[in-house]
Amino acid sequence: MDYYHQPIIRQYFSQDSHFLQKMLRKSCFTIRNQLVEQFKCLEQQSESRIQLLQDLQEFFRRKAEIELEYSRSLEKLAERFSSKIRSSREHQQFKKDQHLLSSVNCWYLVLNQTRRESRDHATLSDIYTNNVIVRLAQISEDIIRLFKKSKDIGIQMHEELVKVTNELYTVMKTYHMYHTESISAESKLKDAEKQEEKQFSKSGDLNVNLLRHDDRQPRRGFVRKIEKMKEKRQAKYSENKLKCTKARNDYLLNLTATNAVVAKYYIHDVSDMIDCCDLGYHASLARTLRTYLSAEYNLETSRHEGLDIIENAVDNLDSRSDKHKIMDMHNQVFCPPMRFEYLPHMGDEVCQVSAQQPVQTELLTRYHQLQSRLATLKIENEEVRKTLDATMQTLQDMLTVEDFDMSDAFHHSRSTESIKSVASEFYMSKLNVAKRRANQQETEMFYFSKFKEYLNGSNLIIKLQAKHDLLKQTLGEGERAECGTTRPPTLPPKPQKMRKPRPRSVYNHKLFNGNMESFIKVPLVVHSFDDMDFLSCKSLINMH
Amino acid sequence: MDYYHQPIIRQYFSQDSHFLQKMLRKSCFTIRNQLVEQFKCLEQQSESRIQLLQDLQEFFRRKAEIELEYSRSLEKLAERFSSKIRSSREHQQFKKDQHLLSSVNCWYLVLNQTRRESRDHATLSDIYTNNVIVRLAQISEDIIRLFKKSKDIGIQMHEELVKVTNELYTVMKTYHMYHTESISAESKLKDAEKQEEKQFSKSGDLNVNLLRHDDRQPRRGFVRKIEKMKEKRQAKYSENKLKCTKARNDYLLNLTATNAVVAKYYIHDVSDMIDCCDLGYHASLARTLRTYLSAEYNLETSRHEGLDIIENAVDNLDSRSDKHKIMDMHNQVFCPPMRFEYLPHMGDEVCQVSAQQPVQTELLTRYHQLQSRLATLKIENEEVRKTLDATMQTLQDMLTVEDFDMSDAFHHSRSTESIKSVASEFYMSKLNVAKRRANQQETEMFYFSKFKEYLNGSNLIIKLQAKHDLLKQTLGEGERAECGTTRPPTLPPKPQKMRKPRPRSVYNHKLFNGNMESFIKVPLVVHSFDDMDFLSCKSLINMH
Repeated sequence: MDYYHQPIIRQYFSQDSHFLQKMLRKSCFTIRNQLVEQFKCLEQQSESRIQLLQDLQEFFRRKAEIELEYSRSLEKLAERFSSKIRSSREHQQFKKDQHLLSSVNCWYLVLNQTRRESRDHATLSDIYTNNVIVRLAQISEDIIRLFKKSKDIGIQMHEELVKVTNELYTVMKTYHMYHTESISAESKLKDAEKQEEKQFSKSGDLNVNLLRHDDRQPRRGFVRKIEKMKEKRQAKYSENKLKCTKARNDYLLNLTATNAVVAKYYIHDVSDMIDCCDLGYHASLARTLRTYLSAEYNLETSRHEGLDIIENAVDNLDSRSDKHKIMDMHNQVFCPPMRFEYLPHMGDEVCQVSAQQPVQTELLTRYHQLQSRLATLKIENEEVRKTLDATMQTLQDMLTVEDFDMSDAFHHSRSTESIKSVASEFYMSKLNVAKRRANQQETEMFYFSKFKEYLNGSNLIIKLQAKHDLLKQTLGEGERAECGTTRPPTLPPKPQKMRKPRPRSVYNHKLFNGNMESFIKVPLVVHSFDDMDFLSCKSLINMH
Repeated sequence: MDYYHQPIIRQYFSQDSHFLQKMLRKSCFTIRNQLVEQFKCLEQQSESRIQLLQDLQEFFRRKAEIELEYSRSLEKLAERFSSKIRSSREHQQFKKDQHLLSSVNCWYLVLNQTRRESRDHATLSDIYTNNVIVRLAQISEDIIRLFKKSKDIGIQMHEELVKVTNELYTVMKTYHMYHTESISAESKLKDAEKQEEKQFSKSGDLNVNLLRHDDRQPRRGFVRKIEKMKEKRQAKYSENKLKCTKARNDYLLNLTATNAVVAKYYIHDVSDMIDCCDLGYHASLARTLRTYLSAEYNLETSRHEGLDIIENAVDNLDSRSDKHKIMDMHNQVFCPPMRFEYLPHMGDEVCQVSAQQPVQTELLTRYHQLQSRLATLKIENEEVRKTLDATMQTLQDMLTVEDFDMSDAFHHSRSTESIKSVASEFYMSKLNVAKRRANQQETEMFYFSKFKEYLNGSNLIIKLQAKHDLLKQTLGEGERAECGTTRPPTLPPKPQKMRKPRPRSVYNHKLFNGNMESFIKVPLVVHSFDDMDFLSCKSLINMH
């Protein structure tokens, strides 16, 4: 078809029928070829889609298997440890006593999370198999059905194009025929006109004479004959010319109609036919992929919720609370014994320190010695305590270093996919780990040596302080007694009555009233065991 | 130790040495038993922790294996389809032409996501093995080491307790001894006093006489002897009493000191010892679990990012854009051919419809017939189009129903773990699916039948409209010609010059200028092919 734009065409522009009809046939043939190719293209497109859908189905079928395997492995893993826990003695105890340690709680939640992941991946597998794959198969069916229907419509469109181009060919041929006849009639007319002209030039001014000498019959007859022929040819020419005009008009009208239909086909109909093939394909594929995405997003949400539960448990890892739970669980072992009572001998009615003369002076001396000794010891031990606290802080800093961020391990950049965890490598490199642990253990050893020192000091202080306080109280009383009355301290107050044991219900709460902290936080001075009577000791209760 | 609170105790309250010492020994024994039990309890606690850590290690070792298996399966799955794609002809074409269809893009992204998940689960496995498990092993080591060190300190504490209770026992025994002696001295003194008193009552008012008759020596000697004995016994009593007082004071001071040390031990030291055992356990376990959580959260974030990429691609699933890409890819097949040109026959210089008499009347009649026919056809076809649009809307509603929410399948309630996807069951139940599909296909069939009807109508309209428009133009010219000049239309304008072909660069853009939409959206009227000249047809370019 390239001849259209070549300057050389112009010489062929007005050509004989044979050449022009060949040109039109060639144009029509090109279009028909395109139509065939268009069908092939659409068919190929449908086949590609069916192939894609088959691949997707195969992909999800296999992924469903993988998810199910993964789910089963996780389930087995969780069950292995869960059954171990169920059968263990401790678990029974925990369950019974509701004394679940925070660390054990974390472990149970890790197992719960594993079970949750297992269930979620099984659900994912189920959705792939019973939903995603089914949808994909349906889309394949739809494509096949719609391609058939669209092809029907395409065939109809093509038949229309063939029809109009055939019509165009026909009307063009008619135009050619009438135009040929018209040309022929025109040339015949021209011949006649030439003959007539020749006749006129032969007889010179004969015509002038003719008016005067109209007796020259033979010449007049010849002229009339020529005129008649010319008239006849004129009529024939006009008739052919009219036919040719009508045929050309028809050709031109058909030409414009054909061009309109062809244009419509290429601009609208081909596009509409493809739309018919596509009908719902993208929407259905989108819904299928959204099903997949919804499943994946929901799995992720579920996973996140589970991780949040674990994170919360890790936030609540609490050594103090665990310590109290352990002591509470073993309250018979950790319950303070009753204090040693003064046991008077054989009717001895004195139950207090005597600070009367002659021992008073000696006790006073002892009291003052204790006082100054205690002051020195306390200062010394306070120094040890400060070192201890600082060491503990150092240890705590080592123990709580935030070395657990794994985000670098999961960065995906297309160019550096193989880059491994930086943080992990830094924190977990053998050299660093060894260094950090050596440092930690050194600090730990120092802490323990200082702790022993502090313990010795504070034990001594507690004993001396107890004696000091008792002496202070006694001497104070003695002084008061000296001032008021001369009654000797040998007349003792009546021995204290023992309290009746309280009803059980009062003791029926936790060791240290469930709050040892308040106890531990009180300054390190002697509590008379009387002050501790509100402690509930199950051991005691059990004995009563 | 229950005797403390029994009312019955009171009768034993002041008892002989043997009984009291037995009581104290019993108290001490009870405490020592507790201390042993406390060690056992801490040891058991450490063992539980080591067991827990072993379980965790074993768990993460196995989970690392599972993650690695999962990762490998996903990798294999992705690779299987990726290699298929790499080797496929279409892929090459897509890559070269950058004509990736939106549906194919989704598929590639699903594969990318699979690879991403594969890498992330491999990373997870790696973190479990080379970080989490290493940390857990270190915590185990720490527990063993710290338990040993804490036990050392505990032994020191226990020795202190044993020491003070032994001291208490010793001072109590001393008190008992001196008190016994004191009682004995007191009774002897009382004997002497009784004797003296007897002497006084025997000798009545003798004492009065004594002042007068101091010659009665033997009686005076006896009295003096008694007095001397009494004095001696008094001295002995005082001495023993002082000794007893001192011993009692010592006993009482030691008692308070012992109680203070015991109280300190139970309230502070036991707790401190447990703290020593615990040192860093919770912090290290928390860091380990946070490493696990960080890895899991980051895996999840990465997964989410990947899913977002797919979701974005699904949002961009676009049938129109895909259609244009396909047509662009096969532009030789879909490029509109050049319009059929008027091919004048053998020097025919007329290239327009002739609307002069005698054909004028006939053409006018034909024009009016076309006009009224077109009006009727357009109304009819507009009705068909409305039905078509409504049917398409119904189809679209069916095709875009939001049936892909899978969240119900992932709800975890502890009581109803086995409950399955409700949405999935509803949408994907065989009966529902069959119903929906039958309904859809029925609508689809109706749509296609209407579409054919519409196509026939619009093809007819387009042809008639083209003829109508050409006639209108011609008749308009003819009328103008009649008014102005009598020159017949048989004297045609010069045949149109053919345009020179444009330079290549102008054509060097996409089919339909990359925007077929604007073309398709224009109303369904005839475009002269001249209007379409700006279309770049690579097919044409290639021919030049």
